[in-house]
Amino acid sequence: MKMNKKIRIAQFGLGPIGIACLSLLSRKNRFEVVGGIDIREALVGHSLNDVVGSSSFGSAQIYESFEALAHETPVDAVLHTVGSRANTSLEQMKPMIEAGCAIVSSCEELLFPALRAPEETALADTHCHKTGGRILGTGVNPGFVLDVLPICLTGICADVRAVYGERVVDASTRRQPLQKKVGSGLPPEAFIELEKKGLAGHAGFHESLMLIAHALGWTVGPISDSIEAVVASEQIETDHFTIEVGQTAGLHQIVHASSPEGHEIHLDLKMYQGAKDPHDYLRLDSEPPIEATVHGGIAGDLATVAALVNALPRLMQADPGVRLMTELSLPKCVV
Amino acid sequence: MKMNKKIRIAQFGLGPIGIACLSLLSRKNRFEVVGGIDIREALVGHSLNDVVGSSSFGSAQIYESFEALAHETPVDAVLHTVGSRANTSLEQMKPMIEAGCAIVSSCEELLFPALRAPEETALADTHCHKTGGRILGTGVNPGFVLDVLPICLTGICADVRAVYGERVVDASTRRQPLQKKVGSGLPPEAFIELEKKGLAGHAGFHESLMLIAHALGWTVGPISDSIEAVVASEQIETDHFTIEVGQTAGLHQIVHASSPEGHEIHLDLKMYQGAKDPHDYLRLDSEPPIEATVHGGIAGDLATVAALVNALPRLMQADPGVRLMTELSLPKCVV
Repeated sequence: MKMNKKIRIAQFGLGPIGIACLSLLSRKNRFEVVGGIDIREALVGHSLNDVVGSSSFGSAQIYESFEALAHETPVDAVLHTVGSRANTSLEQMKPMIEAGCAIVSSCEELLFPALRAPEETALADTHCHKTGGRILGTGVNPGFVLDVLPICLTGICADVRAVYGERVVDASTRRQPLQKKVGSGLPPEAFIELEKKGLAGHAGFHESLMLIAHALGWTVGPISDSIEAVVASEQIETDHFTIEVGQTAGLHQIVHASSPEGHEIHLDLKMYQGAKDPHDYLRLDSEPPIEATVHGGIAGDLATVAALVNALPRLMQADPGVRLMTELSLPKCVV
Repeated sequence: MKMNKKIRIAQFGLGPIGIACLSLLSRKNRFEVVGGIDIREALVGHSLNDVVGSSSFGSAQIYESFEALAHETPVDAVLHTVGSRANTSLEQMKPMIEAGCAIVSSCEELLFPALRAPEETALADTHCHKTGGRILGTGVNPGFVLDVLPICLTGICADVRAVYGERVVDASTRRQPLQKKVGSGLPPEAFIELEKKGLAGHAGFHESLMLIAHALGWTVGPISDSIEAVVASEQIETDHFTIEVGQTAGLHQIVHASSPEGHEIHLDLKMYQGAKDPHDYLRLDSEPPIEATVHGGIAGDLATVAALVNALPRLMQADPGVRLMTELSLPKCVV
């Protein structure tokens, strides 16, 4: 399938990731940005050029809703960069599905939406089949380092017994919202309490595990999840936070599950301010065994943004429905 | 697309890789092996069980041709593990295409067949569209380590300027035909002469480079190719060869190409008896930059065999035609 026409794309959510998506889209030939969507009244009606600080977007404006934008101009695709919860995101996407759009989302739970929102996912999938709509959740983590990449490596394995992944991220290199999400500056007990309520921590970790299990055809039992605050042993200053000794510098989280047949998935994430030796490490207990390191780790919000933009043309070539990264063609950088 | 019925599969070529394919197929639930094909008269008419040393294959036999096998039983798919040349392989595949089969091949040039056999590839593609046939060339190298894996890593890049890959293989761990192909025991001049005639060396290296260029949308200029014999500095004994000092222990080959826009691909392969520190190393000059090592390298003929078997269900879900690895869904190990 060749697509010579530019993809007419809308940006839903103009936070730091949404703005970065727009910057990247403006550098790619495949896309024509037709507008932005944000609920903040202060932004609505402004031109994208003003908000992004660019001259690439012509007369494209910011609208208060997808419907308002779609009323003005046809939309082929949406980049959705608002929120982490599958059910909220799927609700927001209803008018986009109705319009037959392809929607790539940074919503972490959408990496494997059947885990937390099975009914909403089934409804959205049925809706997509009627309209030609498509939905995909992706990113770097979840969406690549601890799920897609190890799954890809199993492609040259005759058999796989276990998948181990370890990711160490220096949160001080990341955007403010991520630094906040890992608890920066909170008393450790306050961070753990927020995390238990789903108001802090790393979203999408269970989804990474489930995508691996699903890809490999493993029926895993309950996911064990251990999380603790990493506490600052010296004062840490970042662009966004000052963290005193004894306060939370970030998190260390491990998820693990196994199947009755003895399959195991074990994912270990350390994401804190000032983490030493950031890296991604993968080990497959497999035939042949595989052990790989991404030196320095794949970090940086630019990678997240690129993962979203790069997935879009591949999503548009997939069958309509709520899709998984394992159902799209091989990841690649789009021109 | 669910496929509950087993895939009825034939094994074309009963060399070491073909036999290993049969062993792996017999361990997987997705496949039913309906027969083997080999031109060697001594094998024709024998049962697969006898030749593989197994009891998994029931009454499945060895036939002298695909037509003879297909006359007896329906065939959905073929694993083709004979030869390195695209035009020869595509000729062999004509009756399989005619039968609408999905064919996964270890033929190195089929990784990117348009490079060496553009007309034959276009004809086969047209033929496939008529019959529902599908063709894919894959493996570990070419097919994964120096092409599919770096392409996959570009999926989280905003931009890529260059792709560097380095692979070091200890040939002594590999099958006899591979040890022979790298020139083991030959005088260095004799190896280079054979290589220039296409009778020795690593097939598919240019194809790896071209698959990367194609995936990233780069129009690269002529491929520069430097090859030299790695000469034994001490006597080397393997299961298959004794290599004296001064004779060829293997090869060191580099392929390189660039585009007018400044894109570069540089692939470096060392494959010789007794190579120290075998590994695969990938580096992307990209945003963000990426550097990864597969410790010990993905070597071993089992990985090659697994790559072929694992690709088959994904090929069957792709559109009919001559397909590339970049067009199939994400690699994964099949159950």
